[in-house]
Amino acid sequence: MNIIDGGITKVKGIKGQGIHAGFKKEKLDFMIIYSERECNAAGVFTKNKAAAAPVVIDREFLLDGKAQAIVCNSGFANACTGKEGLGDALLTAELVSNKLKIKKENCLVFSTGVIGIPIPMEIMKNAIEKTIPKLESSAYASENIATAILTTDLVKKEITIENDGYLISGITKGSGMIHPNMATMLCYIFTDADISSDILKESLASSVNKSFNRISVDGDTSTNDSVVILANGVSGVKVNSEVKIESFKKALDFVCIELAKKIARDGEGATKLIECECIGALTQEDADLASKSVISSSLVKSAIFGEDPNWGRIVAAVGYSGAEMDLSKVDVKLGDLMIVKDGKGTGIPKDESRKELQNDFVKILINLNLGDYSSKSWGCDLSYDYVEINAEYHT
Amino acid sequence: MNIIDGGITKVKGIKGQGIHAGFKKEKLDFMIIYSERECNAAGVFTKNKAAAAPVVIDREFLLDGKAQAIVCNSGFANACTGKEGLGDALLTAELVSNKLKIKKENCLVFSTGVIGIPIPMEIMKNAIEKTIPKLESSAYASENIATAILTTDLVKKEITIENDGYLISGITKGSGMIHPNMATMLCYIFTDADISSDILKESLASSVNKSFNRISVDGDTSTNDSVVILANGVSGVKVNSEVKIESFKKALDFVCIELAKKIARDGEGATKLIECECIGALTQEDADLASKSVISSSLVKSAIFGEDPNWGRIVAAVGYSGAEMDLSKVDVKLGDLMIVKDGKGTGIPKDESRKELQNDFVKILINLNLGDYSSKSWGCDLSYDYVEINAEYHT
Repeated sequence: MNIIDGGITKVKGIKGQGIHAGFKKEKLDFMIIYSERECNAAGVFTKNKAAAAPVVIDREFLLDGKAQAIVCNSGFANACTGKEGLGDALLTAELVSNKLKIKKENCLVFSTGVIGIPIPMEIMKNAIEKTIPKLESSAYASENIATAILTTDLVKKEITIENDGYLISGITKGSGMIHPNMATMLCYIFTDADISSDILKESLASSVNKSFNRISVDGDTSTNDSVVILANGVSGVKVNSEVKIESFKKALDFVCIELAKKIARDGEGATKLIECECIGALTQEDADLASKSVISSSLVKSAIFGEDPNWGRIVAAVGYSGAEMDLSKVDVKLGDLMIVKDGKGTGIPKDESRKELQNDFVKILINLNLGDYSSKSWGCDLSYDYVEINAEYHT
Repeated sequence: MNIIDGGITKVKGIKGQGIHAGFKKEKLDFMIIYSERECNAAGVFTKNKAAAAPVVIDREFLLDGKAQAIVCNSGFANACTGKEGLGDALLTAELVSNKLKIKKENCLVFSTGVIGIPIPMEIMKNAIEKTIPKLESSAYASENIATAILTTDLVKKEITIENDGYLISGITKGSGMIHPNMATMLCYIFTDADISSDILKESLASSVNKSFNRISVDGDTSTNDSVVILANGVSGVKVNSEVKIESFKKALDFVCIELAKKIARDGEGATKLIECECIGALTQEDADLASKSVISSSLVKSAIFGEDPNWGRIVAAVGYSGAEMDLSKVDVKLGDLMIVKDGKGTGIPKDESRKELQNDFVKILINLNLGDYSSKSWGCDLSYDYVEINAEYHT
């Protein structure tokens, strides 16, 4: 497995394009990704009970495990838009599928942006008309696609890897990291491996749990969160043996974790990427709860922004996480420094421990010393800019 | 029931004093409250598994339902301080009880401040020596007591009411309201009613659930959170009939809710108090989940700071709260304005809905239209100052 240059259109048989359609004032705000061949496909969607119209539609469309195109606008979320919103999402799928001469059910629709305002469908129609003739496999197209899905993100987020003779390439967007409870996370992954939709489904659920679910808190999801994977089989490499499936899963884990870390690093106002690893937990759930609780704590995040090695906040976040814990057994490392041993501070001078916070990557290791389970989560610091960005967020 | 002027020493038989002992550089940082008569007592403490030493001690001391004195320092939390920390808390109780000639087990100890640093016991000893001769029932003493427990709070928080011929008076501290997951909340309530410790226990648990637990998220508690109530019976009014107990409970609810709202309004960096009421929920748990989720959402809090009527964030916070919800039935009011009806925006111009956010009290009403349960929660907005206060918090 190795990382290669290039974006989503590096994958054989994949075309696409991103444009400025007018949903937003200036930025690219609309894109289509299209596979020449029908794909096996799977998706993981928000658990939010206020799920957006496109999510409702896509869940239905993916029941047959097939897809061929992805269409996404930014600027409007098409969430809390009632029956009209569902109609708009369906119409979008219809317009794209008619133009591409593919099944409507193979056209997955996504939106991200402001909640509650209907999608301006005139702009949508024009966007589709304008984009489809421009679909191509160029690096330029990849760049436009990855850029068009962004909202408050500062940088595009993509990764492409080669594994066992096929490619896996993903793009993602997502910001707002206090915990990212409502910043929409979108992720599209394409592979030219030949792999069944059942295996895709199982692999994607497992990878999402180790990656995107570790930069958030389960269930605290936005109205539009979606991760989908499409496999067109064009490479001719069949992923059907136990060994090959294991290898595919590992590769997909890597893609999802790298993309999730890119989201965490690009959190609204973020200046640092924080990785929290919890080891020695009694159960897997405990390990997940503890590591997530630390990266979700506003007080930990604020302290790290201020480069204040206030480890009491870390221990307290584990203490209220719900994970089994015996305070007198807890060790905490900040980078390479053991700052807590057996639940007590080791007395390292603040000037020294502060150094571990002065990089743009901060690593926290918690050993509960109770069992054998471990978990990693990622987050970012909480800065003045977070508040500024979120105090008035418009399209 | 009516609110009266004056603080904790208004209650018959209660003396106290607050001083500057030297735990902090300048501010008052130590206090004792003492009842001349032994009290029936009850407490509610943090669920954090990293509970501080004083909490461990107090839980034990309250097993007999009796107490007579409260001693509290600010500046140091005596949390994550190991066996030595437990020893320090015990020694504090001993020193105070010797001086006051009361039982050690009747002397409840509290600390708030930085986690992980041992309490400087020389300062503690001097503080006790210095304070006990100054115990008095004056308004001046009340003011010093309420001030000495504060950390990042901007104002002291107290309320005294008269009910059925007895007084109930409470003071509290607590700040850090993004959600207040680690800012220690302390609350001391005294009454001169004659009431059993069993009824106190039941009443306090019920009132805390409607008040302090509604400005926080259950379980997301600091290492030191404590609420205690002491009843010395000096008024001679027995609270022993069903009617009188009901009346006492209502009065205690009022005291706790008013104190909780004072905490929310004084959240770190707060400029506005937010009240979220959820009605029409299918169960009590759903109503609680929904109202708490809204006042805990960083995105809602940031929007309200920016006076941005971004109601999509409110609906989304209910959507991920875990409460049963049918989006097509949800109504939301901001102040008097119906901004969402049947899950869709009502199209009120932003300039108009923005006006509802321009006061320092913002009221959000959510009707799930599914059942008969309701719940109120309180929080504050998220401002630049929150980040500044928490980026480097020292004694």
